[in-house]
Amino acid sequence: MSEYIRHDPSGRSAGRVEKNYFTFAEPPNEMILDSGRRLGPITIAYETLGTLNADKSNVILVFHALTGDSHVAGTYSDNDDKPGWWDNMVGPGKGIDTDKYFVICSNVLGGCMGSTGPASIDPAAGKPYGLNFPMVTIADMVRAQKALMDQLGIERILAMTGGSMGGMQVLQWCVQYPKMVLSAIPLATTTRHSALAIAFNEVARQAIIADPNWNNGNYYENDKPNLGLSVARMIGHITYLSDEAMRSKFGRRLQTGENFSFNFEGEFQVESYLRHQGAKFVERFDANSFLYVTKAADYFDLTRQNEQASAADAFSNAAARFMVISFTSDWLYPTYQSRDMVKAMKKNGLDVSFCEIEAQWGHDAFLLPNQRLSTLISGFIDSVYERL
Amino acid sequence: MSEYIRHDPSGRSAGRVEKNYFTFAEPPNEMILDSGRRLGPITIAYETLGTLNADKSNVILVFHALTGDSHVAGTYSDNDDKPGWWDNMVGPGKGIDTDKYFVICSNVLGGCMGSTGPASIDPAAGKPYGLNFPMVTIADMVRAQKALMDQLGIERILAMTGGSMGGMQVLQWCVQYPKMVLSAIPLATTTRHSALAIAFNEVARQAIIADPNWNNGNYYENDKPNLGLSVARMIGHITYLSDEAMRSKFGRRLQTGENFSFNFEGEFQVESYLRHQGAKFVERFDANSFLYVTKAADYFDLTRQNEQASAADAFSNAAARFMVISFTSDWLYPTYQSRDMVKAMKKNGLDVSFCEIEAQWGHDAFLLPNQRLSTLISGFIDSVYERL
Repeated sequence: MSEYIRHDPSGRSAGRVEKNYFTFAEPPNEMILDSGRRLGPITIAYETLGTLNADKSNVILVFHALTGDSHVAGTYSDNDDKPGWWDNMVGPGKGIDTDKYFVICSNVLGGCMGSTGPASIDPAAGKPYGLNFPMVTIADMVRAQKALMDQLGIERILAMTGGSMGGMQVLQWCVQYPKMVLSAIPLATTTRHSALAIAFNEVARQAIIADPNWNNGNYYENDKPNLGLSVARMIGHITYLSDEAMRSKFGRRLQTGENFSFNFEGEFQVESYLRHQGAKFVERFDANSFLYVTKAADYFDLTRQNEQASAADAFSNAAARFMVISFTSDWLYPTYQSRDMVKAMKKNGLDVSFCEIEAQWGHDAFLLPNQRLSTLISGFIDSVYERL
Repeated sequence: MSEYIRHDPSGRSAGRVEKNYFTFAEPPNEMILDSGRRLGPITIAYETLGTLNADKSNVILVFHALTGDSHVAGTYSDNDDKPGWWDNMVGPGKGIDTDKYFVICSNVLGGCMGSTGPASIDPAAGKPYGLNFPMVTIADMVRAQKALMDQLGIERILAMTGGSMGGMQVLQWCVQYPKMVLSAIPLATTTRHSALAIAFNEVARQAIIADPNWNNGNYYENDKPNLGLSVARMIGHITYLSDEAMRSKFGRRLQTGENFSFNFEGEFQVESYLRHQGAKFVERFDANSFLYVTKAADYFDLTRQNEQASAADAFSNAAARFMVISFTSDWLYPTYQSRDMVKAMKKNGLDVSFCEIEAQWGHDAFLLPNQRLSTLISGFIDSVYERL
């Protein structure tokens, strides 16, 4: 269980951070999306840690996963006891060392943590977009991030990393803006979302859509589809763990005592855990955003980029140095998918190293404190930086 | 895909079958359940195939899985094109040969296919039990089946088999009525339901409970919780397949054409498949029954039988010859769980053989036509019969 407690390997906090906002694509200069639809204005929420050096050569982009946000590390105030989602990795002296590097993390387009998404006000209608929000893809998310880089005057990115849907953004950047990316660390991710991963997302979406409060996406002035969103989150949490993780974390232990209660109140610890995760999630996440970001992940398929026929073709114009990392017990994006990715990179003569980390915690492993992961990431980034 | 089409290896149908009903435990002689509550009268729906021989030595019990029923093989009428759920295994000349053996399959207690369950009329209230139905366990299901055997005058069972929750009933019989069972073939099952399996069941239950039509189980005179039940079934279907099965069956293929539709209509084939399975299921299954039978599976833990401390202890009074079968791609009840079961049996000096069948279809593999499985089962049963 201790691996589930966030800790700070360096003992030093990333300190106070602020959420910033960048707005662009004001009409009539809206962004043209993969779907062909136009969207604007677009606001992207982002946070930075560390100091940008004079020649802007120390930039690291971190991308969050499905339901994450821009708050990657540090705290918003001195008495804030809930640091960012990757505080164990990002900070002074940590795997991604904010004493040396300038870290940027933005909330994805379509999200609900400050960036424009379905819960944002549609200026044309004067009310939240709801399902009028256009579908976005990972490539669209990356376009918005590129606009932010332009605004910050950043032309080259030393390294980028992220797990799961964050890793998809890493890969997308490397094929979409290949000249900008010096190195990339895709974690626990895939070049194309599998049928199994789509299946889980679809069932989660159906749980939301089945909630009458969802009301075809028009719920912002009424009761929210919290029950459906909670079930969706519970499905997600099963996929983030593994059989082995569940066995060691919960087994068949009961919430209270030795005896079955013979009712539907959720007597097993694993039931209580999932219910708790569901209930917590609805307080922070927008149901429509969940629909949009899961679809973005489902659409992700590098082999369809620029009408390429294979992942190898998709990487043909990539130029970054890669370190690909997978985790043994991850059954959402299993290691074979990372191996396929590595093969495709190698076919293009790219400089790529691959590591499968032994971890029992399933897909979630990339988020958890792991000395090996920290060491691999810091060593890789330092070596890229030293070669500059 | 052809493996998904039911076929009849012997080319001969099991012919016409009839559903029979046996009612017992009339008040004041109700059955006392594991929970301590009393239930009666109890009706058990069952079907038989083949002919019971003079000394009643050719009886085979087949147990259905979670949402199955007593209709194991054959058809209800001459123009019925939907044979029973295991028609590829049970019939003349098939793995379970109805030319030689007398096969009995009953619907579980708590089910909704003719046996007493939450949708049955509570005689005390004059309306369906709903949540007033007492919780039942696998042991309770087996008690009801034992009553049926008593009624039929059957004292010894040549062989019993079933997959998944059907396999749990096999194991339960062997420790609860050890002297009655000559041989047993648990398929794709476990001695204790894992945290992962409980987690999937719990999320499926929460999908039903979240549906306002569920109404705390009181929906029999109103609209049914079909949306919730449909999501529950979709979750189930993911667990019945495997990553590999989904890849080969669906991959990332779209329902129509090459291009994404950029909406939430379910454009991937895997989405359409799951929605179809969900929609079909609500026509035949009762939502409250789903809650009860999933709980029965979750409660299943042979190591808790008779206050035993381990599976090995639980099998200490078993006497059957066992053939345990698992499937390589089954991640709901993975092979390691069958191996643990076999170890526990061997510790008690039981005659047990074990076979892991290479199959890409996941947990569902036990239901699908498989020549190897048919041959193993027929060979095992024949050898037990010949030794009589």
